[in-house]
Amino acid sequence: MCGPYQPVAGPDAGVHDPVPRAADTRRAPGPHWKVTAMTALVHTAEPIDLTVVRDQVEQVVEEFLAAKAAAASGAGHPPEVVRILRDFLASGGKRLRPLLCVVGWHAAGGDEDPAAVLPVAASLELYQTFVLIHDDIIDDSALRRGRPAVHRALAARHVGHDSAARLGAGEALLAGNLALIWCQELLHTAELDTPRRAAVHRVNDTMLAEVMFGQYRDLLGTERLDDDIEAALGIIRYKTAAGTIQRPLQLGVAAGGGDEETHRFCTEFGVPLGEAFQLRDDLLDVFGSPDGRSAPGLNDLREGKHTVLLALAMAGAGPGQRVRLRSLVGRARLDETGAAEIRAILEATGARDGVERMISARYDRCLEVLAGAALPERATEALRRLAVTATQYTA
Amino acid sequence: MCGPYQPVAGPDAGVHDPVPRAADTRRAPGPHWKVTAMTALVHTAEPIDLTVVRDQVEQVVEEFLAAKAAAASGAGHPPEVVRILRDFLASGGKRLRPLLCVVGWHAAGGDEDPAAVLPVAASLELYQTFVLIHDDIIDDSALRRGRPAVHRALAARHVGHDSAARLGAGEALLAGNLALIWCQELLHTAELDTPRRAAVHRVNDTMLAEVMFGQYRDLLGTERLDDDIEAALGIIRYKTAAGTIQRPLQLGVAAGGGDEETHRFCTEFGVPLGEAFQLRDDLLDVFGSPDGRSAPGLNDLREGKHTVLLALAMAGAGPGQRVRLRSLVGRARLDETGAAEIRAILEATGARDGVERMISARYDRCLEVLAGAALPERATEALRRLAVTATQYTA
Repeated sequence: MCGPYQPVAGPDAGVHDPVPRAADTRRAPGPHWKVTAMTALVHTAEPIDLTVVRDQVEQVVEEFLAAKAAAASGAGHPPEVVRILRDFLASGGKRLRPLLCVVGWHAAGGDEDPAAVLPVAASLELYQTFVLIHDDIIDDSALRRGRPAVHRALAARHVGHDSAARLGAGEALLAGNLALIWCQELLHTAELDTPRRAAVHRVNDTMLAEVMFGQYRDLLGTERLDDDIEAALGIIRYKTAAGTIQRPLQLGVAAGGGDEETHRFCTEFGVPLGEAFQLRDDLLDVFGSPDGRSAPGLNDLREGKHTVLLALAMAGAGPGQRVRLRSLVGRARLDETGAAEIRAILEATGARDGVERMISARYDRCLEVLAGAALPERATEALRRLAVTATQYTA
Repeated sequence: MCGPYQPVAGPDAGVHDPVPRAADTRRAPGPHWKVTAMTALVHTAEPIDLTVVRDQVEQVVEEFLAAKAAAASGAGHPPEVVRILRDFLASGGKRLRPLLCVVGWHAAGGDEDPAAVLPVAASLELYQTFVLIHDDIIDDSALRRGRPAVHRALAARHVGHDSAARLGAGEALLAGNLALIWCQELLHTAELDTPRRAAVHRVNDTMLAEVMFGQYRDLLGTERLDDDIEAALGIIRYKTAAGTIQRPLQLGVAAGGGDEETHRFCTEFGVPLGEAFQLRDDLLDVFGSPDGRSAPGLNDLREGKHTVLLALAMAGAGPGQRVRLRSLVGRARLDETGAAEIRAILEATGARDGVERMISARYDRCLEVLAGAALPERATEALRRLAVTATQYTA
């Protein structure tokens, strides 16, 4: 298995799937698909250069934070606060959200100077920084992107202090808050007319609240190991699907003055792709990637996250396997031997293959939606590339 | 001692005070004061009815949160999240910030329908909810407004669970984030023209970041018991002074299209009054109020907060008293006997009186600034009342 649309043998029986199944557009493309694909062949002489967009977005964030660092220094504030955020942003990430935002702006017909959409796109990196820093505090995760999580790194500065962990968590909480506050400030600097500004805020305010509710549900779902696939999908939908694909795309559409239909496209395209993104992420967390760039991990298993992967395993497990899963999953000190046993059950029950099938179905669905949408070809072509990025096997 | 401007005998020697001292305006009022006071006597037939404003603000917040509760219920989100915020808002608070905001709007000459400023004012209650919920998580405070702090109340729902405290803190963190996100959403709904909207966001974004830095400095200052009064004032200035008086007032001025001079007035009036507010709060926390409505507490002493009160005590203490303070302050299990010993040292070193003098000086200063400002009389008169509210001896 090496691609997002790698077909997996066997039926998808027993998997509750609220997203309507698409016919496989690769094997039997519909008329829209053909037209779009052929037009794209003619017009993609100037595809959207996502590398350039990525650089532009990074420059906006970096200039914004450089100004914040200078202001903090002038006010005598502790310098590490801004440094933490800059280091975090520099430590990785695909910049998927800002790229989707800029492509959304093109999808809405935005062809003028992209300066207006860049602060909107860049704000999404600060938003994501906020979400991840807080998420790591909530789960008390040790690592993020292979480095100590922010609250752990800050706690290490208080080594020897009785309250080192509490101080580090408090400082990280405040640094995360600043990332959210600055995400909004960056949005407020975007030069948009009143209707577009209002539309951008509607999308952004919706997204932020959705993600908070998703994280809340995720937290409540911890250590509730059962076969409720619908509940697991509900968590995904709010916690990551909306905030990863649908809303970032809609933010760009809103900034570009897109119509109702283009906003609706973002939902139809974004929800299945966002789910596929998270399902891939769940597989990566437990099994790593075949190319070795992402190592198999223990986080989700130790935390006992209510993932679709585990719900499928519980649904397909025999009594003995269920007992073992209940015993092993959610153990804070789960070791590699225990993890290997869980992984074997995830394979034996067909849960891993089931998740692969769910990813494929969702990927197919979003391609079908894309093919049926009357977007500018440059946007269609870029979204096809981003759909691969969002679901492929690299961390 | 029963009022904010109760004079305290003795010189103010040794107290580093970066706010320029005012002549005592009560004993020797300057010409501005006289004129304003006399004009006010003529024109205050229609003072701003702060009780009505308060009701209006509470209605805006409550309607906003009622809509959020309905939406959350429709989406199948856990109902307690919105309920927590509504209960928190209903549990008390002087609504000082929204009142200042509305008065700021009048100060800027706002005489039209106040509908435009009400969402701005109401957003400040959500902002304050956010700040206090997170502050209680950071300090792991047991109580807020005489009831269990939000993270403690949420943890109690998981009684018997190994991770009850962590779950409660995580849920409260997310609920606090929602309060911030909704504070901004409420702001975004205010019907303001582009320059006023931009001005409102500039003030609000500045305030939010200032408070985060202030909380961060407060956290770093914990358990650093020394006589650095300037450091303690620096914490106050960012953590509460700006976010309690200056910026809320400026938010209203911005919404009302106020000029540079009116914004400057907010700083000159708001910084000393904000400091006086926090100094009063520090005294209330340790000594309670003479009317018994606020009981003497242990929070600040147990946390070892770097307050001006303790810095003054360290500055005035003899060697034996210093040793006792270092031994007692910051003890997580400090009992009433220990607290009584600290209070006796705070009295004996003159620290309590010193703080009273600092409050008086700042109160006088803000009255002087108010007397010299050419604001509409209704605004001047209301600010005089709010200056009392902000510094008086009730919690």
